[in-house]
Order: sequence, then structure tokens, then C-alpha cells
Amino acid sequence: MNDDFSSDASIIDRKNYINDADWSKLQEFIQDKNPPFLVLSREKAISNYKLLESLSNWAKIYYAVKACPNEEILKEFIALWSYFDIASIYELDRVLSLWATSDRLSYWNTIKKEKDIKYAYDKWVRMFATDSFEDLEKIARVAPKTKVYFRLLTPAFWADRPLSRKFGCEIPLAYELALKAKELWLIPYWISFHVWSQQNDLYAWDVALSKAKELFDQLKESWITLQMLNLWWGLPSHYIKKTETISNYLDTIKWFIECHFKDEKMDLIMEPGRSLVWDIGVIVSEISLVSKKSTQEDEIRWVYLDLWKFSWLIETLDESIKYPIYTEVTGELSPVILAWPTCDSADILYENYKYLLPENLKSWDLVYIFSTWAYTQSYSAIEFNWFPPLKIFVI
Amino acid sequence: MNDDFSSDASIIDRKNYINDADWSKLQEFIQDKNPPFLVLSREKAISNYKLLESLSNWAKIYYAVKACPNEEILKEFIALWSYFDIASIYELDRVLSLWATSDRLSYWNTIKKEKDIKYAYDKWVRMFATDSFEDLEKIARVAPKTKVYFRLLTPAFWADRPLSRKFGCEIPLAYELALKAKELWLIPYWISFHVWSQQNDLYAWDVALSKAKELFDQLKESWITLQMLNLWWGLPSHYIKKTETISNYLDTIKWFIECHFKDEKMDLIMEPGRSLVWDIGVIVSEISLVSKKSTQEDEIRWVYLDLWKFSWLIETLDESIKYPIYTEVTGELSPVILAWPTCDSADILYENYKYLLPENLKSWDLVYIFSTWAYTQSYSAIEFNWFPPLKIFVI
Repeated sequence: MNDDFSSDASIIDRKNYINDADWSKLQEFIQDKNPPFLVLSREKAISNYKLLESLSNWAKIYYAVKACPNEEILKEFIALWSYFDIASIYELDRVLSLWATSDRLSYWNTIKKEKDIKYAYDKWVRMFATDSFEDLEKIARVAPKTKVYFRLLTPAFWADRPLSRKFGCEIPLAYELALKAKELWLIPYWISFHVWSQQNDLYAWDVALSKAKELFDQLKESWITLQMLNLWWGLPSHYIKKTETISNYLDTIKWFIECHFKDEKMDLIMEPGRSLVWDIGVIVSEISLVSKKSTQEDEIRWVYLDLWKFSWLIETLDESIKYPIYTEVTGELSPVILAWPTCDSADILYENYKYLLPENLKSWDLVYIFSTWAYTQSYSAIEFNWFPPLKIFVI
Repeated sequence: MNDDFSSDASIIDRKNYINDADWSKLQEFIQDKNPPFLVLSREKAISNYKLLESLSNWAKIYYAVKACPNEEILKEFIALWSYFDIASIYELDRVLSLWATSDRLSYWNTIKKEKDIKYAYDKWVRMFATDSFEDLEKIARVAPKTKVYFRLLTPAFWADRPLSRKFGCEIPLAYELALKAKELWLIPYWISFHVWSQQNDLYAWDVALSKAKELFDQLKESWITLQMLNLWWGLPSHYIKKTETISNYLDTIKWFIECHFKDEKMDLIMEPGRSLVWDIGVIVSEISLVSKKSTQEDEIRWVYLDLWKFSWLIETLDESIKYPIYTEVTGELSPVILAWPTCDSADILYENYKYLLPENLKSWDLVYIFSTWAYTQSYSAIEFNWFPPLKIFVI
């Protein structure tokens, strides 16, 4: 037995992720389907959106399309009057084709070609994120008089998926960008930050809000009053690790805002992606093979599922997201290495973190991976080993 | 200035990767095209294949389709009478549709569903790799009396892309599998190993061949004479690091075989993927943005290209493959961080290893990434941020 796993975390209680009624519905639906595939629940997407809306009536919801661009689900959010946060002209075209309107869009990506800014401007997008002079000048040239927002860098502590310094800039640069924006006849309109994905510590918002307030104050002294604050998102979704309820998180964040911004009137927006919808998807996979590498009795088993990391579950890179993996096979549990059948030897799901699975598990048994809506469909590769892309059903 | 880079390696001499005639041809071809895209040279693919064939007339060439499944290039290899190494039933269907014949195929993947083995058997595939009892029993059930080969585990030293223990088994298990195969009326036919990708040290073949010989001898004592030896491949391709010529590598490997197998008559095969074709592809990319994160003069620049890691250049994960990156812009050089414009903050090409690029580089400038044929097209994601998949031209 290997001791570098926490046994309590790797035994999954199915009811923490899907209730009995939805489970029965899923079982009925998958009966005549060939794994592997992803099943999305339309109802759950709608109810999650409504719940967030009711808990955060003090902020507008900009759904971050990148988390999962499934058109069926996007249509529901459009019908619910959501705003959208887009990352590329391709996302722009797709949401417009579904009858979203440009006045409800924000082009958050700070790395843009000039022709893409022009393309978005011509389609009536009027809000652009920025974090550099070169980008700001591009916006001024081809998207005149639009609203711009400045993305601040925040420290990466405590996040389960700590990201990089790829986006954002330090306060002194943001300050100079705002002055420059005014000079270029753009409208310095808001501040944005990202506390990193799967952020477990609410203190991260405290730090980020304090930075935002510092920039706000400096600009106010230079006669520029920013009018909007983008809280981004980053709230942790429930994978193996248990998280707080959304309402707990929101209450605390709202309190931080009041502490920092007191009587300043700011419009507030948030851009949830993952945490709005993490629990509406279940991947159904069939075991391809269970094997060992030697004749030694006590050697660890390799369990190979029938899907692959670089398209389906890219967030298992470095084992950063630990998905709840469930099977209805029962029996004595022991640790396994979980991998996929592609020829890529790096295509292993979990090797350091050991999941516990029944010893009598074998080929053909079904395995369910919960919380697999975000960042799965869109990463799907077109043809590695010519395995087809992720199959998706919306029920 | 950051000192954790080796300046000599990051200044690219274009002529080491593409000669003047091919360069002119490329320049002419790309004039009316919008970056980013990948250009493949059909002529170079053909001449590489012919060169390898002439240098290794003592072994059959099984081209590893997974490295790049481009149909135009596959057709050329089929016309040249290549054998093929397939990883999935999808690869099987694709090469058959291009008029490859099943007797020239080997199904090397040791992780297979039973129905996939049956599918391949029904299409006349008669050679299967294995490394576990469960897989062997599946083969015996649905692909009776076929030839099987045993994949050995080899140590991972010295490879630029050291892979995992996902495939292969130890000698005692391979031995038992061969006995079992005979019992199940299968034909224990050959031994296979993989010395890992981008293997720089030829000693790895020495070690692997010694293991293969040990298994060969043990089985001979049990009245099983294996008849074929699969050298797999793993020879390093020329990225930033200079490599030896293929003929140098082949001479040494042949000498190792003679040392270990002496007078034993074994058919030899090899399964080149990357190293057969690494130099036939060039990615042409346009710079999206050059920026800094603060107002400090000496801070490192971020150079954002217009393509993205998780579909185009997945082998830059952990910066393991360092592609030659070239621009015709000249000027004083300084280190940069190279990244892409998707919203994924992990989508950075090189941050630890610093490339040197001209200080006057800016948006719209073109950048060429050489040696980008292998493991690019097939990993391309269908729609992350809805960026379209890799565009490919064959000239």
C-alpha cells in the first residue's frame, strides 16, 4: 500500500454530487449509449444561474463563455438575460449567432490583434480590457471612444489552480494607462482583477480589493473617476475537496467591498465561469484495461479509462484538479494509477495522488467523473490518435 | 537581464533548419495567407523517407501514424511502400481509407477494448502488442491465432522527453505472457521496447537490447523462439539542441544489435515518427502583442504569438521541447517570455528558458517556428476560446 493518499478524499459519496432523482434520470438516459461521453443537465444550469442571480442582486453576471461554450447552455443563459465575457472574436461570433446583443458583452482578453479589436468594434462591442500601452493604442485607433478597463495583477496564493502572471499589470502601469486612455479619447471606466482559479482563501479578495482601491484613489486625484469594479470570479468549485456554499463566499466578498470602497458608488460585475456550472456535467467512461507492470502480487494496479487527458480533462495536468471519480462496483479498495489509452505516455490522470478503487474492477465496468462541465468540451482535441472529440449530450 | 538562459542556443540560424531554396518557396507561398498556420513540405517528407530507407535496409520501416496523421503525407508514405504503426481503430480506418493494406499494419497500443481488437481483426490486422494478461486474453478471444509482441519497460534516463511507465512490463511478466500466449494458441512473435522520445544517449539502446536478449534467451529455453525485434525509435530530432546525423545513430544501434544478438536471426523493424519528419513543417505566426507588466524600464518583455499551446505546441509543456523560433527582424537582442493569447494562464510557451529576441519586435511582425511537424496537427483542440484548429497547407 502506498501512503501518499488521503483515503477519505478518494472515496466518493455519489450523493454529494448528484441527487437520487437526477441519478435515475442519468441511468435511464445512458442505457443505449456507448461510452465515453459527457452529459450536461440543462435544468441544473438554469437553476444554478437563478440561484446566483438571487444571491448577488448587487452585481451583474457576465458569464465567462470560455469555461464551456456549449450552445444549448448558452442559449439558456441568453434567455435568462445574462451578460457575457468573451475571449476572442470567435466567441463573439458564436454568442451573437445565438442572439446575444453586443451591449451585453465585454471583451476581456488583453492580448488582441488590432484587426480583432476592429472586428469587435464593427459588431458594436464597446468595452475592452487592457493592460499595456501597445494594446491601448490599438483600441484607440480602431475602437474610438469606447470604455476600457484595467486588469491588475494579484498574488497567486492559496489557489488550487494558481495561474501565471500572463494577464494584468502593476498599479503604477495601470495608473499611467488610465491617463493615456483619457489622452487618447477613450473612457477609463473600470478596474478588473482575478484572484486565480479555485481560490480557497477569501483573503485573496481582500488583497485584490485593496489594490483596486489604491488605483481608484490615485486616479481620483488625477480627476479620473472609475465607475465600475469587476470582481472577476475564481470561487472554488466542489471537486474532491469540499467547498463552502456560494452564499457564504458572496456575503464575505460583499463585506470586503464595503470595507474598502465604503461610500464610493461603483457598479459591480462578476464573471463566473467554472463555479456557475461545474456540477451540471458528468463524464461516463468505460474501463479499457486493468493491468500491472510486473508479476509482483502487491504492485499497484494501472486502471485505464477510455478517454484522454489532453482533450477531455486537461486540468488534471500536474494533478491540479482532482475530479470525483465514482463507480458502482463494490469491493475491497486499494490505490490505483489512473491513465488513458492514447499513445502519449504523459497522458496519465493521477499517479502521485492515489485514488482508491475496488480490487475487482475490470474492463467494461463503468466509471463516472463528476463536476466535469468546465474546461472539458472546449479543450477537446480534433484527432489525437484520431480518437474522436468529446461526445456531448444535453438532457 | 536575466541570466538563466544560454544565449547561444536561443539565437537561431535559419539555414540550420531550412535551406535558401525552400525558404524562398515558403516566402512566396505565404504572401497572401493570414497567419497563424503550419506549412508542410511534401518533397521533404519523401526525401526523408527515402534517406532513412537507404540507410536502414536491414530493417522494415513502420511509420508511427500518431506523430502526424496528415493524409497528404500519409499517401506519399503509402506510395513508398511504408508499413504503419497504428494506435487506435480510428487510425486504422484512416490508413485503410488511403489504401494501405492490413498486412502492413501493427496495432501497437497495449491498452485496448475487446471490441476494438475485434474490429481490427475483422479488418485483417494480425499483429498486436500486449503487456498484460487481461489484454492477452481479449486478443485470444476475438483475434485468434494472431501474432503478439511483448513490450518491455526500459529506464527513462537521458531523454529530452522522458515519458512514463504507462506502457510496457518487466521481463518476468513478459516471459509469463509469452507462455500464456502459446497456451491460448496465439503466436509469441516479437519483442518491442521504447527508449523514450528524444533520446540523446545511444547507451539507452544498449540497455534495452540487453533486456530484450534476456527475454529472448529465457523464452528460447522454454521452446519459444521470438522472430522479430522492434527497435521502436526515439532518436532525437533537431530542435534547438544540435543532434547527430541519422546515419551515425543507425550505425551505432546496428552495432549494438550485433553485439547482443550475434548470430540469432531476427527480423528487425523500426517505428519512426517524429524523427522521420520533424523538419518538414514550419509554423508561421504573427505577433499579437509585446508588453510589460510594470513601468520599470528593465523589466522583461512578454511576447505574445497568435497561436496556443494546448493545441498547437503541447510538447512545450514543462518547456520540454524547445522549438527553434526565428524572426527576420534584426536589432539588439534581449530575453523575453513567450506566451499565447488564450485566456488560459497556463498557456505560456517559455518562461523559465529565455529566448532572445530583438528589442524592436512588435505586433504584426512574423515569427517562424521550425521543426513543427510532429505532434502539432493531431493535438489541435476543436474550440478552446473558439479559436479555430490549426490551419495546414501542404506544398
